[in-house]
Amino acid sequence: MDRQSEKGPRRFPADRVAEQTEVVLKAWGLAPDLAAVTTAAMIDTDLAGIDSHGISMLPTYEPGHGPTTIDFSARPAVTARTGVTARVDGGGGLGHPCAVLAMRTAIEIARESAVGVVAAHNSNHFGAVGHYAAMAAEAGLIGIVTTTARSISVLPARGAVPRLGTNPLAFAAPTGNGRPFLLDMSTSTVAVNKVKVYDLNDRPVPPGWVLDGSGEPVTDAGEAMAYLRQRPEGGITALGGTAEMSAHKGYGLAVMVQILAGALTGATFPPLREPGAPDDIGHLFLVIDPAAVRGGDGFTADVDVIVDTLHATPPADPELPVLVAGEPEDRTREERGRLGIPIPERLLDQLRDLCERAGAPFLLG
Amino acid sequence: MDRQSEKGPRRFPADRVAEQTEVVLKAWGLAPDLAAVTTAAMIDTDLAGIDSHGISMLPTYEPGHGPTTIDFSARPAVTARTGVTARVDGGGGLGHPCAVLAMRTAIEIARESAVGVVAAHNSNHFGAVGHYAAMAAEAGLIGIVTTTARSISVLPARGAVPRLGTNPLAFAAPTGNGRPFLLDMSTSTVAVNKVKVYDLNDRPVPPGWVLDGSGEPVTDAGEAMAYLRQRPEGGITALGGTAEMSAHKGYGLAVMVQILAGALTGATFPPLREPGAPDDIGHLFLVIDPAAVRGGDGFTADVDVIVDTLHATPPADPELPVLVAGEPEDRTREERGRLGIPIPERLLDQLRDLCERAGAPFLLG
Repeated sequence: MDRQSEKGPRRFPADRVAEQTEVVLKAWGLAPDLAAVTTAAMIDTDLAGIDSHGISMLPTYEPGHGPTTIDFSARPAVTARTGVTARVDGGGGLGHPCAVLAMRTAIEIARESAVGVVAAHNSNHFGAVGHYAAMAAEAGLIGIVTTTARSISVLPARGAVPRLGTNPLAFAAPTGNGRPFLLDMSTSTVAVNKVKVYDLNDRPVPPGWVLDGSGEPVTDAGEAMAYLRQRPEGGITALGGTAEMSAHKGYGLAVMVQILAGALTGATFPPLREPGAPDDIGHLFLVIDPAAVRGGDGFTADVDVIVDTLHATPPADPELPVLVAGEPEDRTREERGRLGIPIPERLLDQLRDLCERAGAPFLLG
Repeated sequence: MDRQSEKGPRRFPADRVAEQTEVVLKAWGLAPDLAAVTTAAMIDTDLAGIDSHGISMLPTYEPGHGPTTIDFSARPAVTARTGVTARVDGGGGLGHPCAVLAMRTAIEIARESAVGVVAAHNSNHFGAVGHYAAMAAEAGLIGIVTTTARSISVLPARGAVPRLGTNPLAFAAPTGNGRPFLLDMSTSTVAVNKVKVYDLNDRPVPPGWVLDGSGEPVTDAGEAMAYLRQRPEGGITALGGTAEMSAHKGYGLAVMVQILAGALTGATFPPLREPGAPDDIGHLFLVIDPAAVRGGDGFTADVDVIVDTLHATPPADPELPVLVAGEPEDRTREERGRLGIPIPERLLDQLRDLCERAGAPFLLG
C-alpha cells in the first residue's frame, strides 16, 4: 500500500520484531513484566496487519521526542473492585499494560459473576482495541472494548471542525474454530493513516473520506492531509460519510464511545485537554459469559451457524468471497507468521535513531 | 416526505392515537396491563417521528392478516434470574411488553448490582429500540439494547444476496437537561421504509443505498423496491455503503447485533427461520449504573460537557447547527405534542378495515 510495496518492504521474523519492541520499552524504563504484555499486544497487532498500531507507534511513545507524555515508570493498579465492576488507574503510563490488567480483571469477574465491567482512566494509547476484546473470546467469553482517542480528527455530522477522535470499538465472540469473531473498527470512515498512505502514493482520496470546512469533499490527498494536519477546519467523516449515507449514525457511535470510555471512566474529553497535559485516555472493558446469560452451551454453535451462513452467501464478485470480521487479519497473521513482518525503510531509520537515543540495541539492521 | 406532505397528512392528538392503538390491541386479546405498556411504547415512537415503528405497524401485527404469528394471549415471564443476569421468555407474544419487562428487570438488577444483563427470546417485533434504552436513561442509568430482525434485507459486505436484518442498536445515557443522549440506529445505511418513500415520490435513490446482485448501485426507486421485495438477489447496504466507504464496519456491527440479540439469547437467525414459523426474535438489554462504575457523580456533568462542546461546533452550513443523537426526535416530539401525529390516508384506511375485523371502534375518522 505504500511506495515500497512495488518491491515490498523488508520483512523481519515476528520474534525479532518482538525482541526489538521489548528492548526499547525496557530501555525507556518499563518494568519487565509490563514490557512483556505490551510487546505481546504490539506484535499481535503487527502480525494482524494493523501496521498503524504496532511497532510503528514507538516513535510516538518515545519519551521526550514523541507527542505523548507517557510515564514509563508507572504501574497500573486496580483501585476499586465492587461486585461486578472494577476501576483501573493507568498511572499516566502506557495504555497496553493498563488494558491487559483491566481486561484480565474483567474476565476474572465475568467468570465468577457472568458479567464484568472495568473502567480504566489516566491511561495512554493502547494500540489496537481488538487485541483486548480477543482476550475475552480466547477465554470463551464475549468481550467489548472501547477507548477514547489521543488526537482529534473526526467531524461531528454537520460540523465544520473536528471534535472527536477515531473512537474505536471492538467486539469479540468465541467460535468453534478457535479464532474469534473479532470486529475492531474506528467509528470514522477511515483512519488518518489511510489518507496518509494515499498521499504518499499520490492517489486521489475517495470523496466522502475528508470534508473541508464547508462540508465539501476533498479528493486531493495532499489537500486532505493539510486539512487533517494543519488547518483548524475540515476533517475525517464519521462512518457513513455523508448526510445522505447516514453519517449521523457513525457520529452517534463516536459519541457513544466517548461517553463509555470517557465520561463513564472519568477520563478527559480530547477537545478539553490542556495543551501539554497528559492524554488521560480512558478505556472501557465489558465481558459477558454467554453460558451464564443464555443458560446452556448453545452460544458458540449458534455463532458458528451465523458465520457459516454468511460464508455461504453467494458473492457479488466470484473472486471475493464473503468474510466475517477478523478473517482478513487472521489471513495476514498466517502470512506474516510465515514470511515475517514488513517494515518500511523510513520506519527502520526512525527506529535506529530511537534505539540510539534509548541506549537499546538496534536489532532490525 | 411522502405524497401527502405537500398539504400534509391529517393530524390527530396523541391521546387519540394512543386510545386507538390500545383498543385494537385489547380487541386482539392483549391483557390490559400489557396493552398499556405497548401503547406507551408505540405512541412514544409516533411522537418521536419514527413513523415506521409506531401505529403503522398494526397492519403487520394483525392476527391472521399480517405476516407475523404473534400470540396476543401470551404473557412474557422472567424464567431465570441469577446474579446480574436474567432471562425473559416472550412466550411468542408481542415484543413490546416482553421488552418492557426485560428492561425493567435489567434496571432493577443494575440499581442493586451496578450492571444488569437481560436476554429475551421467543419474542416478536418490539417497535423502536430506542424506547427501551431511554427507560434506563430516565432511571439515571446507561442503557444499551439490541434486537434481531423480522425480515432479511441487508447484504453482507461483498454479498450478492441479503442475509441480515436492519439489526438496530440503541444507546442511551442520562444528561443534565432531562432528555437522554439517545442513539437509535439500524446498522444498515437506511431502512427499507426509506426506499419505499423515495419510490412513492418517484425520486431516484442515492447510489449506495441499494445494490443489485453484482454489487452495482440501483438508483431507480422502483427497481430498488423490486430488489428489496421480489428478487432474491440485491439488497440494502450495511452502514458505510461501499467497500471504499468501509461498509465492512456496518456489516460487522450488524453481525455483532445478531450475536448479542440472537446467539446470546437463544433466538433464531432469520435466514434459518422455517417458513411460517414464529419469528422467535431475541432482544438484549444491558444496563450500567455510571455512579457505581465510575465512582462518584461526575458522569452526567461529563456527558453534558461532551454535548455542549458538540453543540458549540461551528457548523459547515450556518443554517444547520450541530445536534446530538436524540435531538431531532425531541424536536418532533415537541411539535407533534402540540400539533398532533400525522397519519397518511392510506394508513387510516388500513386501520379502519382492521378495526372492523377486530370489532374495535375506529377513533380516527
